[in-house]
Amino acid sequence: MCRVQSLSPTEYLEHNYERLVRELCAYIRFPSVSAQPQHAKDLAACAQWVVDHCKKIGLDARLCKTEGNPIVLAKTPRKAGSKKPHYVVYGHYDVQPPEPFELWKTPPFEPRIEGDSLFARGSSDNKGQNFAHLSAVEAYLKTGTELPCDITFLIEGEEEVGSKSLDGFLRANKKELACEAFVISDTGMPSLKHPALTYALRGIISAEIILHGPSRDLHSGIYGGTVDNPAMALAQLLAQLRDKNGKIAIPGFYYDVESLSAYERKEMAKMPMTEKQYQQFMGVPKLFGEKGYTFIEQRSARPTIEINGLTSGYQGEGSKTIVPAWARAKLTFRLVPNQKPDKIRKAVLKRIAELCPPTVRLEMKVGHGGEPYIVSPKSDIAQAALRTLKAAFGCEPMLMREGGSIPIVTQFKNVIGADSLLLGLALPDDNAHSPNEKFSLDAFKKGMRMGALLWPELAKLKRK
Amino acid sequence: MCRVQSLSPTEYLEHNYERLVRELCAYIRFPSVSAQPQHAKDLAACAQWVVDHCKKIGLDARLCKTEGNPIVLAKTPRKAGSKKPHYVVYGHYDVQPPEPFELWKTPPFEPRIEGDSLFARGSSDNKGQNFAHLSAVEAYLKTGTELPCDITFLIEGEEEVGSKSLDGFLRANKKELACEAFVISDTGMPSLKHPALTYALRGIISAEIILHGPSRDLHSGIYGGTVDNPAMALAQLLAQLRDKNGKIAIPGFYYDVESLSAYERKEMAKMPMTEKQYQQFMGVPKLFGEKGYTFIEQRSARPTIEINGLTSGYQGEGSKTIVPAWARAKLTFRLVPNQKPDKIRKAVLKRIAELCPPTVRLEMKVGHGGEPYIVSPKSDIAQAALRTLKAAFGCEPMLMREGGSIPIVTQFKNVIGADSLLLGLALPDDNAHSPNEKFSLDAFKKGMRMGALLWPELAKLKRK
Repeated sequence: MCRVQSLSPTEYLEHNYERLVRELCAYIRFPSVSAQPQHAKDLAACAQWVVDHCKKIGLDARLCKTEGNPIVLAKTPRKAGSKKPHYVVYGHYDVQPPEPFELWKTPPFEPRIEGDSLFARGSSDNKGQNFAHLSAVEAYLKTGTELPCDITFLIEGEEEVGSKSLDGFLRANKKELACEAFVISDTGMPSLKHPALTYALRGIISAEIILHGPSRDLHSGIYGGTVDNPAMALAQLLAQLRDKNGKIAIPGFYYDVESLSAYERKEMAKMPMTEKQYQQFMGVPKLFGEKGYTFIEQRSARPTIEINGLTSGYQGEGSKTIVPAWARAKLTFRLVPNQKPDKIRKAVLKRIAELCPPTVRLEMKVGHGGEPYIVSPKSDIAQAALRTLKAAFGCEPMLMREGGSIPIVTQFKNVIGADSLLLGLALPDDNAHSPNEKFSLDAFKKGMRMGALLWPELAKLKRK
Repeated sequence: MCRVQSLSPTEYLEHNYERLVRELCAYIRFPSVSAQPQHAKDLAACAQWVVDHCKKIGLDARLCKTEGNPIVLAKTPRKAGSKKPHYVVYGHYDVQPPEPFELWKTPPFEPRIEGDSLFARGSSDNKGQNFAHLSAVEAYLKTGTELPCDITFLIEGEEEVGSKSLDGFLRANKKELACEAFVISDTGMPSLKHPALTYALRGIISAEIILHGPSRDLHSGIYGGTVDNPAMALAQLLAQLRDKNGKIAIPGFYYDVESLSAYERKEMAKMPMTEKQYQQFMGVPKLFGEKGYTFIEQRSARPTIEINGLTSGYQGEGSKTIVPAWARAKLTFRLVPNQKPDKIRKAVLKRIAELCPPTVRLEMKVGHGGEPYIVSPKSDIAQAALRTLKAAFGCEPMLMREGGSIPIVTQFKNVIGADSLLLGLALPDDNAHSPNEKFSLDAFKKGMRMGALLWPELAKLKRK
C-alpha cells in the first residue's frame, strides 16, 4: 500500500482489487447490529476499525461520541483556506439484525464469495457500497493524484434504528459539514446494465383514525340494529377516500403536486421490467393504481393513500356475535415533490372529520411526517452524476425516483442546506434486510470506479 | 310439607314462601359452573340435588346420563293413557363462571338477600326462574289439587356451554317428550310492572371474508400505489353492503321478511324506555338503525348486518408503513321470521363475490346459522300466556320480541315439533352473566304465581 506514482486512481483500484475485497470482508465481519443491545461492543469495535482504516488510507479520521453509537468523521488532507469544492460522503457501519439465522445458507457475519456475489449481512447495506467510496479516495491518496475536491466521510452507526444521533451531530458540526452536496450510495439500481441516479423521493404523513361507538362491545342479537357499527362506519368512511380510478378523494390533495415532465416519463419508461413481470413479483391477481400512469410512475412519482392496519372487535378464530365498541385504521399517505406534509395533513384530517357520521365519535392521532425530495434531473449536478455513471459502468444510466422516504436526505437539506446525490449500488436481488444479503462484486468494482471518476466531474461544476 | 287440603296452590305458595326461598338458596349454593372442568363434581351433586328435590315434592324424577352433564327428567304422576295435555318445562341447573371474583360484593355462591334482591350466581339465570315453576307444581301436588296438565321438567346442565348433549337427548326421548309446547322462563321482562311474553326470536348467519392482495406485506414506499390495498378493497366492499338508511344492500335480502303487524307495533311501543334513555344506555352519540322503525323494532324485529371484527396489517402502537397482504372481516346477519338462513347465506355470498374487485382474491368462510322463530302473538297459546301474566302480576303484560337467538327453541321446534312459551322473569338489571347477579324476590313470588295459574289456562286450549 505504498504510493505508486505511476498509476492512475482507476488503475490503482484494479491492481489492488483483491486486497480491497479482503479489507471489505474484514469490515463486514463485525456483527454491528444496532438494533440489538448485545452488540454494543461490536459496534464500538467496528467504528474503531473504520477510524483506523481511514487513517491508514491517509484520511484525517476521528471517532465522534454521540448519545448513541459513535460517528466516524474522516477528511481528506486539506490546506487551510482550501478553495476546492467540499463534498460529504455519507455511509453507515451498522447493519440490520441477521435473524432468522436458519434461513442463511452460511453464517451472516462470515463473508462468503460465490460467483460474483459476496454474501454477508451488511455486504450491500451499507458497508460494501460505502467502502467503494473509501477505496476510490484511497486510490487518489495512495497514487498521489491530487483530489479536485475536499471530501469528508460521515459514517454513522444508527441508520438502521432511525439515525437518532445524526440530527444533533449535524447541528453541532454544521460549519465543518457545510458542503456542495452529500454523496450517498445506499439505494439501488435496476441491474448492472442500468446504473442509476435516484433524484427524487416521496414524502409521507401518517394518521390513525379511531371511531368510537357504544361504550362497550354489545351483544349483536340484543342490541344490533339500533346503533351504528363502528367497523361499518369506518369502512364507509375509508371507502370514500379513494375513488375507482385510484385517485385520492380529498379536496386539495393534488393541488401542489409537481407533474412529471415528458423527459422524466421517458427516462422512467426505461426500467427493465414488464407489467406482467411486476404483477407476478407482487403476487397479485391484477395490478391497481392511479389511472393514467405506469406502475413505475405510480410507485415512485405519484402520491398514495394506504391503509396499513385495521383493527376492530373480534380477532380470533370463529365468530363472536358483537357490535364492536370501536374500530381503528392506521393510514399513511406518500407525498411527491412540492406537496407539503403539514398542508396535506390538514386537508386529510378535515376530510375525515367531514366524512365521519354523527353516530360515532371520531378520534384522530397524527403521526410522523416526512417531506418529499427532488433534485432536478436536468441540474448540472445530476447531469455530472449521470456522466460519471456512464463512464464507470460503460452503459447508459437511468434516472430513478424512489417511492420511499430517506429521512437523512431531508435532514441534510434542512440542517446543512445541501442536496444529496443518491448513487445506489444495490441490485434488486441483494436481499437487503433479509437473510442471505449479498453484494455484487461487479457492482463493487464499478462502484469504486464511479467513486474515482465522480470527483473530477463534480469539480467542474459551478459553485453554490 | 304435609298435604294441606284446605289451601289452594297460590295460597300454599304464599304460606310456604320463606321455606321455598331457603330451598332455592340451597340449590344456588352449588357452584355448578359448566364451563370449568374443576366443577364437574359440583355439577353432578347439583343434578342429584335437583332429582332429590323433585322426588320430595312428588315428581317421578330420574337422572339421565349424557356424554356431558346429566339431564334431570321429572314428571308429574300420571295415569296410563292420560288424556291431559302434556307440557314440558325447560330449565338448566348449570351457571356461568363467576369470574372476576373481585367485582362481587359477596361471594358468588353464598346467597345474600338485600331488600328485594337475592344476590348469587345462578339466582336469576336460571335456578331462580326455573325453581318458580318447580314450586308452583309442588303447590298442586302438596295441596292435592289436580293438575289439569301432565307436566315434565327437563333440566339440563350444559346450557351455558352450548347444550351439546340436548339434541341427542331430545332425539332419543322424542316420544316421552312429545308435548303441546315447551314452557321456558330463561329470558327477561322490562320491569315488574311489565311482565312479558317473548313470542319471536331472530335467527342468524355468519360469514368471514378474507381479501388476499400481494403475496406478502409490502413496503408502502417502494411498492405503494401499484397494487390494490386489501384493507381499502375490503372497506369499499363492506361499505356497499349497508345503505345510508340502514338497509342491507343485498338483492333479495328482504324478500321473505314478515312485516310487523299494527298490533305488534302497538305492543312494542309499550316498552317503558325512551329513545334518549336507550341512547345513554348504549353510550353512543346518536342512535342509528333502519329508517322507518323504532329502536325497539330495530333491535328485535328487523334484520341486521354487523361487522363483528376487522383484521388487517399492523395492529400495534404507532405506524408501520406497509401494504398489508390481506384483510379480513367477520360478519353476522340477524334474520327475522320467515327469512331462511340458507337462502340468505347464498344471497350474501353472491353479492360479496360480485362486489369483490379483480385486484384481490376473495376467500369466504361460512359459519353457523340459526333460524328465526315466531309464535303468532294472536295465537290461542300466546293469549293464554298473556292472561296468565296479567293475573299473576296484576298488570297488563307486554308482547316482546327478542333480538338474539335461543338455539334450544329451534331444537324443540325441529326435533319435537313443539313451540316454546318464553315467560322470562329476569329484570334488565339482574346482571346475568356478570358479577353480582341477582334475582328479584318479587319476580320469584309472582313467577311462582304465574307458574300456578298457567296450567288451568293452558288446559283450556284446543289440542294440537
